Amino acid sequence: MNFSKEFTSAILIIGNEILSGRTVDKNTSFIAKWLGELGISVEEVRVIPDKEDAIIASLNELRKKYQYVFTTGGIGPTHDDITSESVAKAFRIKYDYNKEAYAILEKYYAKSDFNEGRKKMARMPEGAALIYNENGSAPAFSVENVFVLPGIPSYVEAMIPQLKKILVSGKKIISVSCDAKVRESSIAVDLENIQKKYPDIDIGSYPYSNKEGFGTVLVMRSTNEKKIKSCKIEIEKMIKAFEL
Amino acid sequence: MNFSKEFTSAILIIGNEILSGRTVDKNTSFIAKWLGELGISVEEVRVIPDKEDAIIASLNELRKKYQYVFTTGGIGPTHDDITSESVAKAFRIKYDYNKEAYAILEKYYAKSDFNEGRKKMARMPEGAALIYNENGSAPAFSVENVFVLPGIPSYVEAMIPQLKKILVSGKKIISVSCDAKVRESSIAVDLENIQKKYPDIDIGSYPYSNKEGFGTVLVMRSTNEKKIKSCKIEIEKMIKAFEL
Repeated sequence: MNFSKEFTSAILIIGNEILSGRTVDKNTSFIAKWLGELGISVEEVRVIPDKEDAIIASLNELRKKYQYVFTTGGIGPTHDDITSESVAKAFRIKYDYNKEAYAILEKYYAKSDFNEGRKKMARMPEGAALIYNENGSAPAFSVENVFVLPGIPSYVEAMIPQLKKILVSGKKIISVSCDAKVRESSIAVDLENIQKKYPDIDIGSYPYSNKEGFGTVLVMRSTNEKKIKSCKIEIEKMIKAFEL
Repeated sequence: MNFSKEFTSAILIIGNEILSGRTVDKNTSFIAKWLGELGISVEEVRVIPDKEDAIIASLNELRKKYQYVFTTGGIGPTHDDITSESVAKAFRIKYDYNKEAYAILEKYYAKSDFNEGRKKMARMPEGAALIYNENGSAPAFSVENVFVLPGIPSYVEAMIPQLKKILVSGKKIISVSCDAKVRESSIAVDLENIQKKYPDIDIGSYPYSNKEGFGTVLVMRSTNEKKIKSCKIEIEKMIKAFEL
C-alpha cells in the first residue's frame, strides 16, 4: 500500500478454530472496515493458536511495530481462554482481578451462577482500561496500545461505539471501485501506467467470473479524495476503450 | 494446540483486499481443512499487503519456522501481482520466464491475446516446480517448502489433487464435536478437568446463542482416535449432568 499512513495497526486473532478451518474469520473484515473509516490502516493480520508462547511473541512484536494492535478471542471463561493472562505476561504486568470488571460480572450473573469460570473473566493485567459491552456482560480491556477484544463478532460490534471514542483517528481512508467487464489480463498494461501516474493511490485489481463471463473489479484506496476522483475518471476511460 | 504435530505449516495470504476488509478470506478455512486431512497442522496464518519487503520478511521467517508454507494471492497479470518476484528475491533466486509455464499460457491464449500481462504469469523463480491448474490456465509453483498458490478460491481448489500427491503427509487430524445446550461459563470448571486428563487432545469451547437460548460447541482434535472416543464419552456425560 502506497498512500501515506497516519495511523497503522495489526489484528491478532487468537483461536485454534480459525487455524483448523472450522470457523471462517469474520472479525478481520469487520474491524478493518471501521478502522478504515477512522483513518487507521490495517497493515497485518495474524492468526495464532491459543498458546501462551505464541501469543506473547506475536504481541510483543506487533505492538512495537504498529500504533495499535487489536486482539480477538480467548477472553472467555474456559480453560482454552488464555489471552488475558498471556497479555499480562507479554507486558510483564501482574494478572489479577479487576475490581470494576468483577462488580460488572457480579451484577450480571445471579449469585448462585457466579462460578469460577465466570469470575475468571474479571482477571486482567493490572491497570487495564475497561472496554464495556453494551449489553452489560463481560467487558474487554486495553493495555497501552493493545486492545483485547472478544472473539464473537456480535460482542466486538457492541464495543465499537466505545472504541471510536478512545482511538485517535486520522484522515478517513476512501475506497472507490469500478467494475470492468473485461479480463484483468487484458487491461494489465494500461492499468499499470495509471498506477504509476498516481503513486499515492493503491489500485487493486480483482478478477471474477460469472454467468455473463469474466470481469475485474478495480479498487482505488487513498486518503486523498481529489486524486481518487481524477484517477477514477482515467480508469473509467480505459475500461470503456476495452469494453467497446 | 497440544497434540503432537508431525507436520506443521503456515499460510501467508498476500492481498490488500483482505486487509482493507473488502474481502473475507475463505482460503484459510479451505486449505486448513484439507491439510488437516493430510495430517498437516496449520500453526499460523498471516495476512500482509502486496508489498515486496513485507512478503520477503514474512516468507523468510515462516519457511524456516514451519515445514510447509502456502502463500495465496498476487500471482496474476496486473501491477499489484508481485508475489512471484518477491518469492524469488526471498530465496535470492533469479526471476525469469519458466519455459513450461510459458508454453502452457501460449497454448491457452489466442496469439493476439497473449499480451505482456499474460506473459508475466510465466515468470517465476528459476527452478520452480509447476503446480498445474486443471482447467489449463496459469500454473502455480513451489520452491523448496514454499507453495505459491493463486488468490481465487476456485483456482486453489483446482490445484488440490496435485498438491496431495506432492505433500508428505502424516496421521490424519481427527476433529469431533459435541453440542451442549448450556452456557460455556457453566461448564468451564468441569471441562478444564477433562482437558487436564487428556493432555494430547485439544479441546476447544465455542459459545453461541440462537432463538432457543445459549449453547456451546465442544471440539476435540487429535491424531489419536481411541483417546478422542473416550474423551467424547466423558464430555457427553458432563453435558448431560448440566442439561438436566
